[in-house]
Amino acid sequence: MNISLLYCFDLFGTAIFAISGVLLAGRLKMDPFGVIVLASVTAIGGGSIRDMMLGATPVFWIVDNNYLWVIFLTCLATLLLVKQPKQLPWYILPVCDAIGLAVFVGIGVEKTMRLQDSMMIAVIMGVLTGCGGGIIRDILAREIPMVLRSEIYAIACIAGGIVHTTSLYFGISSQSSFLLGVVTTLSIRLAAIRWHLSLPTLHLKG
Amino acid sequence: MNISLLYCFDLFGTAIFAISGVLLAGRLKMDPFGVIVLASVTAIGGGSIRDMMLGATPVFWIVDNNYLWVIFLTCLATLLLVKQPKQLPWYILPVCDAIGLAVFVGIGVEKTMRLQDSMMIAVIMGVLTGCGGGIIRDILAREIPMVLRSEIYAIACIAGGIVHTTSLYFGISSQSSFLLGVVTTLSIRLAAIRWHLSLPTLHLKG
Amino acid sequence: MNISLLYCFDLFGTAIFAISGVLLAGRLKMDPFGVIVLASVTAIGGGSIRDMMLGATPVFWIVDNNYLWVIFLTCLATLLLVKQPKQLPWYILPVCDAIGLAVFVGIGVEKTMRLQDSMMIAVIMGVLTGCGGGIIRDILAREIPMVLRSEIYAIACIAGGIVHTTSLYFGISSQSSFLLGVVTTLSIRLAAIRWHLSLPTLHLKG
Repeated sequence: MNISLLYCFDLFGTAIFAISGVLLAGRLKMDPFGVIVLASVTAIGGGSIRDMMLGATPVFWIVDNNYLWVIFLTCLATLLLVKQPKQLPWYILPVCDAIGLAVFVGIGVEKTMRLQDSMMIAVIMGVLTGCGGGIIRDILAREIPMVLRSEIYAIACIAGGIVHTTSLYFGISSQSSFLLGVVTTLSIRLAAIRWHLSLPTLHLKG
Repeated sequence: MNISLLYCFDLFGTAIFAISGVLLAGRLKMDPFGVIVLASVTAIGGGSIRDMMLGATPVFWIVDNNYLWVIFLTCLATLLLVKQPKQLPWYILPVCDAIGLAVFVGIGVEKTMRLQDSMMIAVIMGVLTGCGGGIIRDILAREIPMVLRSEIYAIACIAGGIVHTTSLYFGISSQSSFLLGVVTTLSIRLAAIRWHLSLPTLHLKG
Repeated sequence: MNISLLYCFDLFGTAIFAISGVLLAGRLKMDPFGVIVLASVTAIGGGSIRDMMLGATPVFWIVDNNYLWVIFLTCLATLLLVKQPKQLPWYILPVCDAIGLAVFVGIGVEKTMRLQDSMMIAVIMGVLTGCGGGIIRDILAREIPMVLRSEIYAIACIAGGIVHTTSLYFGISSQSSFLLGVVTTLSIRLAAIRWHLSLPTLHLKG
């Protein structure tokens, strides 16, 4: 895949996830630096865990500071634009989260395939890159992580990762595979948000 | 120690911890993919942190995918077996947790002793391998981590780790040392569950 | 900077953060081994994340066991001294936290500057070293992490880190830079605690 295009997607996903962090921080009435902290962990948390597990250290944002500038400028812009307290539509946060999720699953698969051969590991690392930051964001904010709530979430990432790796396996260009994966994750997740889709849940007492 | 026997124990502990994740996921009414996520972090979370801290990256389950298959098949089997909502006895989850804990403390000690000389580090890494996954599971599920509740938990791991390393130090075979450690951790922990044993607690206000 | 002086500060910060862990554990009525666990994650959590992200593994306390002894002896001393339940003044925990924070931000900046050139990364790693342990402590104890509450916290660390790196940049000795940074972090944070200072907060609904 064209490196610079992948890079653009990566910075775009970073910005989107940073916005989702800012929105949650605003809901929790944090100060500007708390906002930056929450935006940062959301945007680079998943990729950091991926890099540490793969042993690809120092992690990506230490090697390339542009990720940090993107987060910082995104926070600044978001803070300036939404200065006044106002009622945002409920779906803004989950939709931002879904876009960041879809892009980051693709980024995680792509980066892992360069280091490892296993398709299964690539899918898992994609899921981890996509979900990791949001999980840390939700833990810090003491919300139940989105990934564990009943709406279709993990399955969207897994489906996107499988489509991505399978496309690569059948010789489709890495760029098209990436886009196929992203579109898969995003459409499943958006559909789940829109129609409140969920899988049947396991239900145990005790 | 016979590598393949250690390996069997490791996969066994993985399966048991995966079950404990599934049970908690069921109590929280998660969907099948949320179940897999919670089972996975419980089963491989502790070992992943250990490997990252030791610098033994990529972490173990990236190198050897069997761990992931064990988790996947365990989830599948558990989901099929406990399909219907029903009241499980209260002690099933803590007992599964105790067995996984005892085995993983031993695995952690054994793996660390191959990389490091320090007995203290080996004990700590044993405790971390045993407790880490359960801590992440409980954080995600927004429960107070078992390790921090008043029943004897951390001390069982520490005792098991000390018995294990001390046995090695006195020249007992690594297999017997492993088993001695596992039995120590398990019996202390099961006794604590059975009779609600606890140490006197520190009690500060303010 | 004189290595042995930095080392003393590092062990001092470790002890102070361990005390903050013990105090919180006491408030939550934990047993002695739960106390050790909470003290340990508070004291070495932030530095461990820093080292894993930088790829400086095995992490510092595996290489040098003195940190663990400091934690152990601090727990022992604190447990012996505050044996009886009694009302501690409310400010003891935040003040201990502030001192540990200030020292660890400096340690994080100093250690990172030896491995990396970027001042921005050094500041971030300082913030991470300072805040990381406390965040894990608060997550385990199910409190909202101090860093995300409205009182000035992250900004104190960032200011300290910037003063530290800027002083280095202008050729001030590393020892003086370290102290300038520590004093900056500490005074901002103590002032915030004393007068309940806070920045205006972002406030979103939805």
